Amino acid sequence: MNEYQNQMESYRSAVEETLNGYFTAQDLPQKRLFDAMRYSLLAGGKRIRPVLLLEFCRLCGGDWHAALPFAAAIEMVHTYSLIHDDLPCMDNDDYRRGRLTNHKVFGEANAVLAGDGLLTAAFETLCTAKTGADVIVREVGILSGAAGELGMVGGQVLDLAGEDMVLTEDEVHTIHDLKTSALIRAACQMGVAAAGGTQAQMDAARDYAQALGMAFQIRDDMLDVLGDAEKMGKKTGMDEHKNTFVTLYGVGKCSQLVEQYTKRACAALSIFDDAQFLDQLAARLALREY
Amino acid sequence: MNEYQNQMESYRSAVEETLNGYFTAQDLPQKRLFDAMRYSLLAGGKRIRPVLLLEFCRLCGGDWHAALPFAAAIEMVHTYSLIHDDLPCMDNDDYRRGRLTNHKVFGEANAVLAGDGLLTAAFETLCTAKTGADVIVREVGILSGAAGELGMVGGQVLDLAGEDMVLTEDEVHTIHDLKTSALIRAACQMGVAAAGGTQAQMDAARDYAQALGMAFQIRDDMLDVLGDAEKMGKKTGMDEHKNTFVTLYGVGKCSQLVEQYTKRACAALSIFDDAQFLDQLAARLALREY
Repeated sequence: MNEYQNQMESYRSAVEETLNGYFTAQDLPQKRLFDAMRYSLLAGGKRIRPVLLLEFCRLCGGDWHAALPFAAAIEMVHTYSLIHDDLPCMDNDDYRRGRLTNHKVFGEANAVLAGDGLLTAAFETLCTAKTGADVIVREVGILSGAAGELGMVGGQVLDLAGEDMVLTEDEVHTIHDLKTSALIRAACQMGVAAAGGTQAQMDAARDYAQALGMAFQIRDDMLDVLGDAEKMGKKTGMDEHKNTFVTLYGVGKCSQLVEQYTKRACAALSIFDDAQFLDQLAARLALREY
Repeated sequence: MNEYQNQMESYRSAVEETLNGYFTAQDLPQKRLFDAMRYSLLAGGKRIRPVLLLEFCRLCGGDWHAALPFAAAIEMVHTYSLIHDDLPCMDNDDYRRGRLTNHKVFGEANAVLAGDGLLTAAFETLCTAKTGADVIVREVGILSGAAGELGMVGGQVLDLAGEDMVLTEDEVHTIHDLKTSALIRAACQMGVAAAGGTQAQMDAARDYAQALGMAFQIRDDMLDVLGDAEKMGKKTGMDEHKNTFVTLYGVGKCSQLVEQYTKRACAALSIFDDAQFLDQLAARLALREY
């Protein structure tokens, strides 16, 4: 394994171990809720947001081990959003990451509540970090701002409202900026905040995340059309009634855009002299081999 | 108006004004989400949890005006829980507080998202308080702990799981302790924390809230059976397939229990020499005339 893979493996195994420590009580009557929360939380996600958070923390001189509660919290928020997005009243998906979706296993009511529980637990988890209270308040502010009505939740509302409609380029960009990029931006900025980083570092994290989020979403839309169901672990071709970058630009231009955004992401890291990991992560993202 | 009513009016109007200031942007594409969030947030609730929070803050020597963001946050959490509880996959209610429920007006997907948005915004709102970061972290910890899988969400899972089953006395108590009392307890303790109160004050707040929550829930179950639809603002007799205190004890014993718990609530306030407001609030609760 090369250095990138070693570092990635360190982050991922620490994140898995941390996540695996939550909602483990066996003797409480609401055990089924815990099971539903863990079912989705430990479903083998790529942990991209936690990894970005931990690496930006390290890059800004922080102790990334101390930031693991923050990393766990953002993965809880991401997981809750997937559970709710999959619900019958939203995207009505039966599979996610190659397994039955939460509501298919635990029922619709429990899936809503498992999502609610994970979202709430994310903020409880932020408070358990052994850092100064001022850092925790910044983390709560960044995460809630990115996940809420001005961020991810707002994007999901727009995405659903835009189904079966022809949207403008600006509208499609806004949807994906809110629905996808906002939380990736939060991950990077929470990492900087965990290390007590500078405003310049915060800005660089924002620009990197912005470009990475776009590359990520465009690539996601392309994979859906290209039909690589095995790699996606979910049914593909589901986005036909949605406004995607592929319907907007076509596959060829999308491919160019992924390359452009990847370059832009890397360029945003010029203030750091140790950004190889994040450069590689951006490059591999385009291949879905991070 | 007597002193109690004056104070209640001060709290309520300050809370209404504060809540009315959120989610007001008119020029954002996700305006419909804001409308859905405000529809339920400003639906004329009694604001019991904010009032408890503000009064405990005042009682412990704090500036209750400075605690308004905390009061707003707990009302957002309460409101989100009502929106999700009313969903077709949960209690499937058409009316709440005399108006159509959120999903009846905005659709099921938007109602789920309006709830998600309010829950997320609650934590964002806590961070806007002009208090020390250590106080905010305590508020986030208390609120998330009470609202999550070990509190309100856990209680809702148990409540749904127990439908159409005969539960033991202990099981019914556990459900309502988690589903109702936990958030009332959080309100009182967040008030103490806002004022930087002592552990003894924190314990008194917990005991008062515990007893008040029980009186509140028993009274709620009684009203449902007694069929006072006008006072409830929602369809009554809906709890027939649920385990309520009335099915457990009958109306007569419930009436006695409300009285006992009300006395117990007042007794918990003996360490304060200025607890008339909270005494009266507990007494009036039994009459639903707070």
